[in-house]
Amino acid sequence: MFYPGNVKKEYNRQINYANRGMDLENLLNQSNEYYLETNRAVIYKKPTPITISEVKYGAKERVITKAYFRTPSTLDYNGIYRGLYIDYDAKETKNKTSFPLANLHEHQLLHIKRVIEHGGISFLIIYMNNNFYYLDGKDIINFIEESDRKSIPFSYIEDKGFIIEQKIKPRLNYLDIIDQIYFKED
Amino acid sequence: MFYPGNVKKEYNRQINYANRGMDLENLLNQSNEYYLETNRAVIYKKPTPITISEVKYGAKERVITKAYFRTPSTLDYNGIYRGLYIDYDAKETKNKTSFPLANLHEHQLLHIKRVIEHGGISFLIIYMNNNFYYLDGKDIINFIEESDRKSIPFSYIEDKGFIIEQKIKPRLNYLDIIDQIYFKED
Repeated sequence: MFYPGNVKKEYNRQINYANRGMDLENLLNQSNEYYLETNRAVIYKKPTPITISEVKYGAKERVITKAYFRTPSTLDYNGIYRGLYIDYDAKETKNKTSFPLANLHEHQLLHIKRVIEHGGISFLIIYMNNNFYYLDGKDIINFIEESDRKSIPFSYIEDKGFIIEQKIKPRLNYLDIIDQIYFKED
Repeated sequence: MFYPGNVKKEYNRQINYANRGMDLENLLNQSNEYYLETNRAVIYKKPTPITISEVKYGAKERVITKAYFRTPSTLDYNGIYRGLYIDYDAKETKNKTSFPLANLHEHQLLHIKRVIEHGGISFLIIYMNNNFYYLDGKDIINFIEESDRKSIPFSYIEDKGFIIEQKIKPRLNYLDIIDQIYFKED
């Protein structure tokens, strides 16, 4: 038995995280479980959006016998942290020099913009060149509005983004980056 | 072709909203679309949680050929309004005297509590006795902590809750209740 995340995994011919054997979705799910257990944040991955076209009623339970994957119009993860609405997605690329914007649907870019306008925090976690980068939605929107390029150069990600600390718990300590950007006391 | 919401609809032997011919989920989806179009809030229904156990790779697209419904551990709708994290669910009962707590899973109650603790707004929209009621998560938690009853009496909902205004746009104007409770200027 496998979960939607694994479907995606298979489909994408998964990148292997050295010594980890775990995909980005699992790393984030584990991190979010840890944040939940330690009462630091309430953040979940949304279920995979599907269109159900056939359901059979078995003796014990209903079984979906035909369904299709839908294009998501929002990002995969959302929740609350320090009173703020959090909304993000996780992406990975084997490309070493730039992050192709084809990884984001137009609706998702609009969604990032809206979340920021309404006072939330939106960002991408990008696995690239053996690091996990936090790239804030504001920097993504700025880049797109000032450029007509179809990909974000790695130099821009290095400049504007933040490398996410990898630990045992949480695996990806991305909330520390939010503390740094949004709750810095100086 | 039908969507997850309609599956639920069929399953529940849907209550009919006089002159409306529309289920609660559709009323809320339309309301949320209107809120999005008018740039008032960014709130979406989460996809139905399922466990996929079989996928076939067709010529054009992948088709899910076996999947099961999962018990949700969060609520169905979430998003951002006036900078605040919003998280709620929609329920209906034909029961005239009380709202059975069996309508909520234990995980969902815990989720409501956590959202409130982290500074978000959580609530239920309950269709009962021909009205749509807003019942705040704080009042639900208070009731449960002070009582061992298995249902919330209708009198409590009438006392603590708010009747949601029905309009053409939005169909269910529930954000006005949030303004009233959380943004009252006096």
